[in-house]
Amino acid sequence: MITVYTWTTPNGRKVPIMLEELGWPYEVRTVNLGQNEQHAPEFLQISPNNKIPALVDDEAEGGPLSIFESGAILTYLAEKSGRFLAPSGPERYKALEWLHWQIGSLGPMLGQLGYFAVRAQDKTPAAIERFTEEGARLLAVMEKQLAQHRYLAGEEYTIADIAAYPWTMAAASFLKDALAEAWKDKEAVRRWLKDVGERPAVQRGMGVPKV
Amino acid sequence: MITVYTWTTPNGRKVPIMLEELGWPYEVRTVNLGQNEQHAPEFLQISPNNKIPALVDDEAEGGPLSIFESGAILTYLAEKSGRFLAPSGPERYKALEWLHWQIGSLGPMLGQLGYFAVRAQDKTPAAIERFTEEGARLLAVMEKQLAQHRYLAGEEYTIADIAAYPWTMAAASFLKDALAEAWKDKEAVRRWLKDVGERPAVQRGMGVPKV
Ligand SMILES: N[C@@H](CCC(=O)N[C@@H](CS)C(=O)NCC(=O)O)C(=O)O
Ligand SMILES: N[C@@H](CCC(=O)N[C@@H](CS)C(=O)NCC(=O)O)C(=O)O
Repeated sequence: MITVYTWTTPNGRKVPIMLEELGWPYEVRTVNLGQNEQHAPEFLQISPNNKIPALVDDEAEGGPLSIFESGAILTYLAEKSGRFLAPSGPERYKALEWLHWQIGSLGPMLGQLGYFAVRAQDKTPAAIERFTEEGARLLAVMEKQLAQHRYLAGEEYTIADIAAYPWTMAAASFLKDALAEAWKDKEAVRRWLKDVGERPAVQRGMGVPKV
Repeated sequence: MITVYTWTTPNGRKVPIMLEELGWPYEVRTVNLGQNEQHAPEFLQISPNNKIPALVDDEAEGGPLSIFESGAILTYLAEKSGRFLAPSGPERYKALEWLHWQIGSLGPMLGQLGYFAVRAQDKTPAAIERFTEEGARLLAVMEKQLAQHRYLAGEEYTIADIAAYPWTMAAASFLKDALAEAWKDKEAVRRWLKDVGERPAVQRGMGVPKV
């Protein structure tokens, strides 16, 4: 059985989306970040960086395997299933580059924007400005790519789209006001959001965990 | 021939270190960030997110391949060479989780600390405090792992160590003052820094590009 440790946040939704795409059964364990459950000793055994998501696969090759970091988990599931990531060739590395782009830029920078522009009680204008600019820059990078290709890594839907979707939805909802100016000319990103968002597996995955 | 586009920064050193480990010939093209060369149209063709490093391999399977994002480049080189990343099994995913941890946390958070604590002209205490805490938290996560294992992903040296080394060196040099408190009890991280730093390939890679 596959167990997913997750919460109702952008990083938390990526793994349920992938598992719904695969149609594989999985159990969900909620890690309530509002109650600091990510610091519980049992959870730190699986996820030493105290973050969701994490995954345990009891039936992995070579015995039970636990993995943290959504990018590593998506790669694991793609390699186990043979889906949403080419096994070799240019398509594989185009998908991995955009996956890493999400992990290294889109996620952390929108995460900081969320903190400084929305969650922090005291507002820090210099930080809000920096992360608003960075968020706008990243949406522009995405727009350029998606104006030329149906999906982030080219013409096929891959784990790069699965990773980027919940964060781009956050940019369009939770962070809508902070990024209002940037959203004005993002037709291709909107088209992609609609296209990916119509996938039944994405709709189901975005609803996990139910709390 | 392999061409590496890079500069004298932590992310810029990872790919030269890997190529030195492999002993593969490569050409270096400098992208001078101080002169904004990362925004040149020819470079954006290869690296649409306007960041170094990027790599072009003229002799890739299926024709010339360009890749951006250091994590994707390290994975590509590991898969092409069959080295520093197990082809399957738990060792593979332990290396990928710590690789993604570097890409998604250690790199961007220390990068923001560098900006707010060192590079920014006007100092923003709330941002300095946030990223100092985050940097200290990440060093503590590393310490715990390296107190139990020789390398980040276990007993073998992998692309996770190659990715984390230049950033941990930045934490110990450029960011030493900001993280002075955190460094006090990081014996295992220091032992690992010494161990990895003694590798001749790491020493050569840290000197690229020469400018
Ligand atoms: N790079 C990580 C980021 C994970 C992450 O930031 N998770 C957040 C929720 S979206 C979290 O667990 N935060 C709790 C904490 O940092 O204490 C990944 O992609 O898995
Ligand atoms: N996640 C990226 C980060 C790359 C990165 O941040 N590169 C910096 C230098 S260390 C850069 O090129 N900055 C120039 C800019 O952002 O304009 C990777 O690992 O390749």
